[in-house]
Parts: sequence; C-alpha cells; structure tokens
Amino acid sequence: MSSKHFHHSDIMAMDQRYRTAFINSLSGFKSANLVGTQNQAGRTNLALVSSVVHIGANPPYLGMIMRPHTVRRDTIENIESTGVYTLNHVAESFYPQAHQTSARYDEFTSEFDATGLTPVHIDSFTAPFVEQSPIKLGMTLKEILPISCNNTQLIIGEVTHVILNEQAVGSDGFVDLEALKVMAISSLDSYHVTQQQGRMAYAKPELPPRINTPSR
Amino acid sequence: MSSKHFHHSDIMAMDQRYRTAFINSLSGFKSANLVGTQNQAGRTNLALVSSVVHIGANPPYLGMIMRPHTVRRDTIENIESTGVYTLNHVAESFYPQAHQTSARYDEFTSEFDATGLTPVHIDSFTAPFVEQSPIKLGMTLKEILPISCNNTQLIIGEVTHVILNEQAVGSDGFVDLEALKVMAISSLDSYHVTQQQGRMAYAKPELPPRINTPSR
Repeated sequence: MSSKHFHHSDIMAMDQRYRTAFINSLSGFKSANLVGTQNQAGRTNLALVSSVVHIGANPPYLGMIMRPHTVRRDTIENIESTGVYTLNHVAESFYPQAHQTSARYDEFTSEFDATGLTPVHIDSFTAPFVEQSPIKLGMTLKEILPISCNNTQLIIGEVTHVILNEQAVGSDGFVDLEALKVMAISSLDSYHVTQQQGRMAYAKPELPPRINTPSR
Repeated sequence: MSSKHFHHSDIMAMDQRYRTAFINSLSGFKSANLVGTQNQAGRTNLALVSSVVHIGANPPYLGMIMRPHTVRRDTIENIESTGVYTLNHVAESFYPQAHQTSARYDEFTSEFDATGLTPVHIDSFTAPFVEQSPIKLGMTLKEILPISCNNTQLIIGEVTHVILNEQAVGSDGFVDLEALKVMAISSLDSYHVTQQQGRMAYAKPELPPRINTPSR
C-alpha cells in the first residue's frame, strides 16, 4: 500500500476540476436528494443536493448547504418566498433522471418536465414532491445561516411531512433505506447502492462492541 | 405498497427514542468519521460523527454539526483550544471499534485506549490520526457557527492534510471510497458497505442522462 500525504499546498496546486472531484470525495458517502420548490407563479423547480445533514431530532430539523450564486439560485429564492420545500430521496430506479436535474436549464424550463420526473402535490403543501421518490419530506423553512468564509448558506428546515412505505419503518423507528432502494452518492457523480453489515448495539463503557444481526 | 403520511403532529407525538431513530434516518446515508483531538496536556480524544458535510472545494472546507452539551464536549473544547482536529473515515475492518467510541467514557479515559484504535501523529500536526483509517484528514479550524434554533454548532475546518492510498485516486481526482472499504451509516447505528452503480456524465440540457460504466 502506497500511502500518499497531500499537504495544503498540494491541494491548492491541483487543477480546479481535479480538486473539485478530489475534495468532494473527502466528505465520504452522502445522501442524494431532490429539492422541490415552486415560485409564486406556480412554476416548479427541482435541484439535486448531496449536502443534507441531520441537525436535530426534537424538533425535527434537517440542514443543507447551498451556494447562492449557482444554477440552484431559483431554489433558494423559491424557499425564501414560499417558506417551504420538499426533499425527495433518490432511489435506484430513477437516479439518472435525478442527476439530469443538475443540468443548467434556462429559467423557463422546469426540471420536472425536462427529466420526466413527476411533480405531485400533497394536501395543501405548496412545494411539489417527486412521485417516484420512496421517501418524500415536506420541509418548512426555519432559518438561513450565512457561511461567511466561502459565501454559502446553511438552510435549516423543520420536517413537517414524511411520506414513505410504513413497512420500511421498524418497531424502534429505524427506517430501512436499503429496502426502499435509496442511494448514496460519492464525489460529484458516483451513485451507490448499499449492503447493511450490521446495526451496533448502544455503546457502553463497560461492554465490548456488539454487532446485531443485519435486519434482513 | 402502503404509503403512510406522517404529519408534524405525528412526529411530535412519537416516543422520544423512536423519534430519534426515525428522524436520524431521514437525512439518508451519511459518512462515518472519527474526530481525533488532543487537549493542551496531550490527552487524546476520539469521537464518532456522521454529520460531516462538504462546504466548498476551493478553499477546501468541510463542516460538521455538533451538539455542545453532550459527551463530545471534549472534542469541541480541544478543537477550540488547539485549532486543529483530524477526520478519519471509518472502514469495514474496524467499524465496531469506531462505534464503541460513542460510549460515555469518563474524562480520564481516551477512546483510543478504550477501543484499541491506534493514535498516530504525523509531521508536527497536534491532533492524533487513527492509524487504521484509510482516509486521514488533518483539519484546521476556520469558523464555528452557532445554530440558534436548537443550540448546535456548525464547525468548519480547512483540509490541510490528506493521507490515503494514492491508487484510490483516479486521474480526474475522484477518490474511490469503495476500494478503500469506507462505510456509510444510516440512522444512529446501522453500518453499510456500498456497490457503485455508475458514475454519471456531466449533465447538459441538450443531452439525455448518460451513465458511465462503473469504474471497477
């Protein structure tokens, strides 16, 4: 095994595209979500994000990092103006279409129309869900935190709707993402299915680590 | 398929442990990292986090969400006092020991000693790396952002050292996490290996989605 040590100067000297792929790999496996929004005129927008992060369970908050001055600007403007958005987990059956939403369509094109994904409205929730997604979350904007060091934003929302197959929810509240064919992403463009190796019992200082049998 | 719609009131009515497992599932697959720190007296600390998130590639920033008033308080104090920490990706060969670092050891016990993971110092970097980890990152604290809505913090660091097997780095900068046996985590305690389905070509409005052959 040839272990290599990249120093900060090595990273800064990398070609820009190379560094982007390299650094985007270093955060490890990531979730793949489609953010659904709608503007005041009812035009829908769908954007792929891999930066969704757990903020807290009580109240139920999720965050995501967004860059204001990119193609996803529409998404942030829609979230700010309507106060709501959806997060739709990307599954094996439609990940190529999900990735296609990252193309730079013009402002008059909805990524739903362009990719063949289906918008669905549930109850009176203003933002569109993705029908094909096995985990659909309705989010209510809670807070937008500016990240000054690189001009990005942490958008925090409260989970106000969860739509999924209840057979995937265990008796302890664990949601079996694998059973729902939810994918993981790495770097910018690599899509992965997973295989559970085990669930760990709650760790205690006086006991060795205990692996529970995989749930399937 | 029996699709269930959980409303906000259903979530708030859940038993606390059930809700914790449920909501922690909703952010999808997550990275698994061990945060290595050291206090001014040289005592080491190791804490498991699943909240590492990409902030930017240029400069190379990673964030992580931490709760100040938990067992991982030592970690934040050490980061604040020394300005550095390490992120060490959890791999298949040692994930039970990695999970065991989440046990509430007393303040005089290093999680390295308690779990059998090996601290290693590289160059003059103050924070300890985990020898067993296939991707070791040396991080320099950039910014701590308070998240007021639930009293957590977003800790942002700059990637200043990267140590990994260079055979896992592709000609385009993509790091093959699978080849390095890096794991994904779901909910609080479920560990997964992955299988790449494909890398997607850069999406363009005028072209359909194109799946490249898996790299292996």
